[in-house]
Amino acid sequence: MIYIYTGHGKGKTTAAIGQTIRALGHKKKVCLIQLFKRKEYYGEQKILRNLKNLDFFSFAPRHLFCNPHHVRTDVRNQCKKALNCLDKILKSKKYNLIILDEFNIAIRDAFIKTNELLNILRAENNDADIIITGRSAPKKLVKIANLVTEFKEIKHPYKNGIKPKPGIEY
Amino acid sequence: MIYIYTGHGKGKTTAAIGQTIRALGHKKKVCLIQLFKRKEYYGEQKILRNLKNLDFFSFAPRHLFCNPHHVRTDVRNQCKKALNCLDKILKSKKYNLIILDEFNIAIRDAFIKTNELLNILRAENNDADIIITGRSAPKKLVKIANLVTEFKEIKHPYKNGIKPKPGIEY
Repeated sequence: MIYIYTGHGKGKTTAAIGQTIRALGHKKKVCLIQLFKRKEYYGEQKILRNLKNLDFFSFAPRHLFCNPHHVRTDVRNQCKKALNCLDKILKSKKYNLIILDEFNIAIRDAFIKTNELLNILRAENNDADIIITGRSAPKKLVKIANLVTEFKEIKHPYKNGIKPKPGIEY
Repeated sequence: MIYIYTGHGKGKTTAAIGQTIRALGHKKKVCLIQLFKRKEYYGEQKILRNLKNLDFFSFAPRHLFCNPHHVRTDVRNQCKKALNCLDKILKSKKYNLIILDEFNIAIRDAFIKTNELLNILRAENNDADIIITGRSAPKKLVKIANLVTEFKEIKHPYKNGIKPKPGIEY
């Protein structure tokens, strides 16, 4: 089944991380592919790397927003590598749960085409549950998904000038 | 700061669990108080109990929905114990993050009064971040919260007759 966590509200990546923990508790095998997340920056990375039955891949650690001097084609190439990685892990049929963190953003910002992702997801007859996170999920993905939650921002402290906090925002 | 995860969509508790993992990665101390969650049933419980710097309490393991033969006052008493526990852990000033899982439901279903919770939260000048989860967050809580995310259900497989799956729903 395909699950999409989208919308502007806080909690999408942490919900996917929580889902990872829940699945691991049932002895499921989980693969997490992260985009646009610097290594050793997000608190969860330090805990997740020590957990059994979890494989963790990271590509394109910086979006152009965070590093405007970066070359667009480099980010695109990194995202292509992430898709190749997904293709391989689907073919391996090793995992029960696969998290594609921020893939919606990669599609929104044209680093990945929706059809590139869809073709890979459709190519394999795989039982794995797949969670795709990130704002602005494309309509084609929403259409094929089994579950979609929109994380709607009702209030956010950034709007009152409060800065990101370790352990909360990263 | 007070964070509320509410709404009918999937992901509220898992987002709080993910937030726990993120905070632990920054060596923060976390306390999780769960209501209405049977022990040894939810996958996350098996992983969380082995993590350092996390204390985990559970009260009223079954809501009346799940056990209609249960006596309402018993659930109410369990919820009172959960509030006493919260009061103590706030006084201890030991934790950086406190998760109050399903407390919104306890208020919605009149096992806890909004003011009982608010009075405890206000009594202590505590720096801890507090995440309160559950559908139907009361207006008074939303008003004082710093961050509110509504988890909006766009699509859910239950509606197509698909049953809860271990590692996903529990």
